[in-house]
Amino acid sequence: MIDHLAILAPGLLGASVAKAARARDAARRITLWSRRPETRAALRAQPWADAIAETPADAVRDANLVILAAPVEKIIDLAAQISPTLPRGAIVTDVGSVKTRICEKCAAAMPPHATFIGSHPMAGSAKTGWENATDDLFIGRTVFVTPTEQIADCGFRISDLGACDPESAPRSGALLPPQAAKSAIRNPQSEILCAFWRALGSTPVILTPREHDEIVAHISHLPQVLATTLAAFLAQKNPQWRAHAGNGLRDTTRIAASDATMWLEIFQQNRAEILRALDAFQSDLATLRAALDHQDHPALRARLEGGKKFRDTL
Amino acid sequence: MIDHLAILAPGLLGASVAKAARARDAARRITLWSRRPETRAALRAQPWADAIAETPADAVRDANLVILAAPVEKIIDLAAQISPTLPRGAIVTDVGSVKTRICEKCAAAMPPHATFIGSHPMAGSAKTGWENATDDLFIGRTVFVTPTEQIADCGFRISDLGACDPESAPRSGALLPPQAAKSAIRNPQSEILCAFWRALGSTPVILTPREHDEIVAHISHLPQVLATTLAAFLAQKNPQWRAHAGNGLRDTTRIAASDATMWLEIFQQNRAEILRALDAFQSDLATLRAALDHQDHPALRARLEGGKKFRDTL
Repeated sequence: MIDHLAILAPGLLGASVAKAARARDAARRITLWSRRPETRAALRAQPWADAIAETPADAVRDANLVILAAPVEKIIDLAAQISPTLPRGAIVTDVGSVKTRICEKCAAAMPPHATFIGSHPMAGSAKTGWENATDDLFIGRTVFVTPTEQIADCGFRISDLGACDPESAPRSGALLPPQAAKSAIRNPQSEILCAFWRALGSTPVILTPREHDEIVAHISHLPQVLATTLAAFLAQKNPQWRAHAGNGLRDTTRIAASDATMWLEIFQQNRAEILRALDAFQSDLATLRAALDHQDHPALRARLEGGKKFRDTL
Repeated sequence: MIDHLAILAPGLLGASVAKAARARDAARRITLWSRRPETRAALRAQPWADAIAETPADAVRDANLVILAAPVEKIIDLAAQISPTLPRGAIVTDVGSVKTRICEKCAAAMPPHATFIGSHPMAGSAKTGWENATDDLFIGRTVFVTPTEQIADCGFRISDLGACDPESAPRSGALLPPQAAKSAIRNPQSEILCAFWRALGSTPVILTPREHDEIVAHISHLPQVLATTLAAFLAQKNPQWRAHAGNGLRDTTRIAASDATMWLEIFQQNRAEILRALDAFQSDLATLRAALDHQDHPALRARLEGGKKFRDTL
């Protein structure tokens, strides 16, 4: 159990962390801070908030675990604002969708006695805002945890960790992909953070920020690029066509309805990895186009069956 | 009301037509034929079947409306088999996903006193087979109806039709896209067929086979190409990644789980239109890639917002 949990700028994810921590007894005390005074006033009335701070620096003054729940581009600013008042041994994390840049900048902003470790819960909802938070948002979901070299006090490489070896301690969250076991940092702070996420019902997975960004570029950002491009492409066609859309088009484009500003930030932050994934996808798409053009039915069938096999395992 | 409805090779769609016609009093008599003797035996016990024929030719002997519900590549064979026994004035249709080739070949197979008009209900289910048929499958769905020049007896162009002008007779199904109003054929037979589909709760839409194939290439076949390519692409990656798939990936790839054989047939039949749609899509995707590469944020935002706007209207 975390003694004092501070959550800054709670939206859907941050407030769901607070509600889940309260419901599942994962934190003794919960302090919140929000930028707007009227939000702070509204949060004061919530049973999952023990205290509302007036500033980020105040919120973290004696916190053991700090969650920066702001949008991606604001996380780095918040890390700098809280740095002077972070107590000894504090662990700071975030809930942003991209990790390399955030981890690098936030780790650099920490004082020597505090540790930044990135988190990315693979959870969300079409609804945003703390008003839509639920205490079961993380149950059964993956939470990526991305420690870096920057660690306070007692940090050491996984090879020094003995009992926390991924094979001997599967409770710590499966290391993934296999090569991550070698490259990802592991330390007592990341063990504490993983234990916290596990207490909220999720499955923490430790990997490096770079590996994280490669994975989400493929399983989250590339699907967004395709759904957005398909929807924007069809928007140029006869407006009457859309009246005949079946469930196939509805499903395939569903995430195109996501918030544009949020996705623009993600595209900016994970640009290199998205470009890499997109290039490889475009090459596969060109191969399928050629098979269709040349009536290469075995190749088309192999593609259809390969896609079906993958989808059936999801 | 249709006096005698014959449905050949009923699967999910064909049997749903029979059930819906029975439930909604759209046909006085329903005769079925199925290739396998054990299926014919099972169909005999269904309350929505009045008679089971031993051959396609027998099934249509005095039918007013014949529905060829077989897979795409079998429809043309069936049209040829029933041609000698079709009664005067019979209307023959199908439920296939692609129309140009089917309409051309089936219309050519008709005797002078019968009319072939294509149909494509935008309805379906993950489950296939007549056992999964439901009487509400067509409610609220579009059914494309694609008459051709081949018409028995009293066929004439829309301009000769007076009262059946699309503007004055909106009940006949909206003509779509606008230019279809000029090029699509309209005749008493297509009015009867539209009235039948309307009686099952669907919205018939008349257009030419070619226009139909262009539309479905965009709103159905292109999404399938993308979902299949994305799923087959990710199948080559670290198998552990898929454990972290969120709902976005699940939605975007859902139709990749569809039957490979069915889609291979559709890809073959609508090859030219799919290639055209795919080329234009690939060009849009390359434009988005360039905007990402060059950090052209206004262009990326415009694409994200355009996609969102389209999806929000679906």
